[in-house]
Amino acid sequence: MEATRKILDLNAFDMNAADKLPPAVTSLVKRRKQTFGPTSMLFYERPLNLVRAEGVWLHDADGTRYLDAYNNVPSVGHCHPRVVEAISRQLGTLNTHTRYLYDNIYTYAERLLATMPEPVSNIVFTCTGSESGDLALRIARAVTGGTGFIVTENAYHGNTTAVTEISPSSASAEPRPPYVFLVPAPDTYRHGSEAIGPKFAEDIRKAIAGMKAAGIQLAGFIADSIFSSDGVYPGEPGFLAEAVSAVRDAGGVYIADEVQPGFGRTGEKMWGFARHGVVPDMVVMGKPMGNGFPMGGVAVKPEMLEAFGSKSGYFNTFGGNPVAAAAGLAVLDVLNEEGLQENAFDTGAYLRSELRIAGGNGDRVGDVRGSGLYIGLELVKDKASAEPDRALAERIVNGMRERNILIGIAGGHGNVLKIRPPLCFTREHADIFIDGFRSTLAKVI
Amino acid sequence: MEATRKILDLNAFDMNAADKLPPAVTSLVKRRKQTFGPTSMLFYERPLNLVRAEGVWLHDADGTRYLDAYNNVPSVGHCHPRVVEAISRQLGTLNTHTRYLYDNIYTYAERLLATMPEPVSNIVFTCTGSESGDLALRIARAVTGGTGFIVTENAYHGNTTAVTEISPSSASAEPRPPYVFLVPAPDTYRHGSEAIGPKFAEDIRKAIAGMKAAGIQLAGFIADSIFSSDGVYPGEPGFLAEAVSAVRDAGGVYIADEVQPGFGRTGEKMWGFARHGVVPDMVVMGKPMGNGFPMGGVAVKPEMLEAFGSKSGYFNTFGGNPVAAAAGLAVLDVLNEEGLQENAFDTGAYLRSELRIAGGNGDRVGDVRGSGLYIGLELVKDKASAEPDRALAERIVNGMRERNILIGIAGGHGNVLKIRPPLCFTREHADIFIDGFRSTLAKVI
Repeated sequence: MEATRKILDLNAFDMNAADKLPPAVTSLVKRRKQTFGPTSMLFYERPLNLVRAEGVWLHDADGTRYLDAYNNVPSVGHCHPRVVEAISRQLGTLNTHTRYLYDNIYTYAERLLATMPEPVSNIVFTCTGSESGDLALRIARAVTGGTGFIVTENAYHGNTTAVTEISPSSASAEPRPPYVFLVPAPDTYRHGSEAIGPKFAEDIRKAIAGMKAAGIQLAGFIADSIFSSDGVYPGEPGFLAEAVSAVRDAGGVYIADEVQPGFGRTGEKMWGFARHGVVPDMVVMGKPMGNGFPMGGVAVKPEMLEAFGSKSGYFNTFGGNPVAAAAGLAVLDVLNEEGLQENAFDTGAYLRSELRIAGGNGDRVGDVRGSGLYIGLELVKDKASAEPDRALAERIVNGMRERNILIGIAGGHGNVLKIRPPLCFTREHADIFIDGFRSTLAKVI
Repeated sequence: MEATRKILDLNAFDMNAADKLPPAVTSLVKRRKQTFGPTSMLFYERPLNLVRAEGVWLHDADGTRYLDAYNNVPSVGHCHPRVVEAISRQLGTLNTHTRYLYDNIYTYAERLLATMPEPVSNIVFTCTGSESGDLALRIARAVTGGTGFIVTENAYHGNTTAVTEISPSSASAEPRPPYVFLVPAPDTYRHGSEAIGPKFAEDIRKAIAGMKAAGIQLAGFIADSIFSSDGVYPGEPGFLAEAVSAVRDAGGVYIADEVQPGFGRTGEKMWGFARHGVVPDMVVMGKPMGNGFPMGGVAVKPEMLEAFGSKSGYFNTFGGNPVAAAAGLAVLDVLNEEGLQENAFDTGAYLRSELRIAGGNGDRVGDVRGSGLYIGLELVKDKASAEPDRALAERIVNGMRERNILIGIAGGHGNVLKIRPPLCFTREHADIFIDGFRSTLAKVI
């Protein structure tokens, strides 16, 4: 999809500019190009050469520290000592696959499933969000007999062949298979918060009708409930319910992709779908689950897993090993004990409020939206036209990086700042962020 | 595929027998069934409840130790202190994705690529062998324009949707898509070592012709060079070359799946394909790469990666993170410093020799074959008929477990013992194994 390629490009380092960097950095870029190939992308016009991290801070080789307002994988904070200690201890004790019994993996499964709505009471562990999404599609197709999936126009659900097909934001999702139908993201900025629930449901019903007309049977609808790669649209709690009902009425399943909103990030609830009062058929988990330890999972209704398992084998070598369980348990402990979901709620609200104030006087910050510590800030040519301004977003991302603050970009038009820090991001950090944002905005407009 | 389901079943614990176990084990089985669902499989008629491990030893909650002759993931030994220490230190220092520069990941990439034949000089890091195989298929299809793949009749290449399609040993590979063509595994036991190279190449040529007749363009041929799930057929060094030439002549690529034979296991060389003097277009890596840390990779010719990358995006969140690099470097260090490839060669040869002696007097051990510490022992009803004896294999696997020695089963007929210990398995361990095997065989025949 041409749109995303440009988004990646505008945020990316130009490999041909390597010689303009300090010699030590140039050398790393050359070694990277030699081993990873020339199409491997680095962030920012001036890439970062990192050496260590803790909490919300990343440190480069020159001793500069960067405020991390981008990375959602180290969700409870970079190198959290509690998580590091739990993983290290387990690594030295036992690390095997799940064909043997091991107590702590069931303890973790029970703790995790206790956060899910009651009918979602089985779990399959994997290593990544991509593997989880891929498995969820297989289960959905096996239990419904359908092949068709509905996703939003700029969705991203991972990097395997199967989930790339349902990831229109990925360049390699083209050409799109005939069984993938797209609906516009719930753009509350341009359509308003009140209208978006019925509109989104209507778009889903149209896609279902289109699929039926094409002779394709619906398998399901998959979305992350804040529509992150579409441009961050959390919408009002509950707006998703009507669309989910429409999918169920047509015989499809609803898969909640919680790789982005899950594990407390959206502040109001542990899970993004829970904001909407809907019960998914499957919940896809990844990124923040182990705070950087590679792990993922699919929580699923037992009757679906049994129907799938009765005709299909699935085994994941590393998935659910005792080390992943130790990492996952430590993440749940830290989330609870440090009140990180509550912090996401409070700090997120404060940060959005301050960003609205910072953008209020000018004509370029069209919208500030989000839930908890997942925030989208939409840059426009002017508020009246609401025309996306991709070039401005690029200047701000790189301008912030020069002020040692890290953010990214989202959305089909590449004009939405993606602000998504570790959940231990406090008001103090938000104030540093706002200062940097104000001065960047003043300089780059 | 019905065959594999039975293989899994015969090696599996019957969930309904949980009440016959000690209460502590029964409780774990119930918690497992409750969270993982009833179709999740445990090894052995009496499942193991593990608490710790080191080297080639696994320990259960009752203090019993088991000789591990099955697990190839902890390839340099369970909980190897060098690997544990490297991972733990890096976890506390920095763990991010690869959009920033970080020195040790390039050091690891360089060290790993230095073990590959020269034209295979780029690498994409992933988290699992399945993700690696899935990506390799995407690259192969992108660069050839074809869709068709040739695999062996009981191959296993992973658990994503795309690699399940080319894994006939997986129950869920059915129905097989029209672009997947099967060839018989190179059965040296039934066809002889000398004939197998020309026969296998002829089977490949037939598959290519069949694909052409069906109007499907060849993308490539993928195999692990010891044909592990087909029943462990390493064959004589070099026999694979003619088949690979046939694939290339027809415009296809050759993907070496090194998840099973790679990282020194086959003894003679670091990589399984190297035994055959062939140069793959891509090399798929997984399981032993991080000694249990979830990591994988695809080594690839640069022109292929560039052709793929110019039209397709690929990014793997956890893949190639600094912790994976630390784990991978430690594994390479231990392999070298402890001479594990050489040990695999020597101990493997000794173990095969002793197994042949142990089976020589009777009529049930039809063949003992292997390379390094990947050994297949084929059980038959009698040597004259060479008829596979699955029931005997089951009795031996469970009989060995009762003697505290762990092995598994391979092959489309479920009659091949799969002996595949950590590479620090010594002659002393081999002697324990042989004693256990002799007494098991005497009892179960």
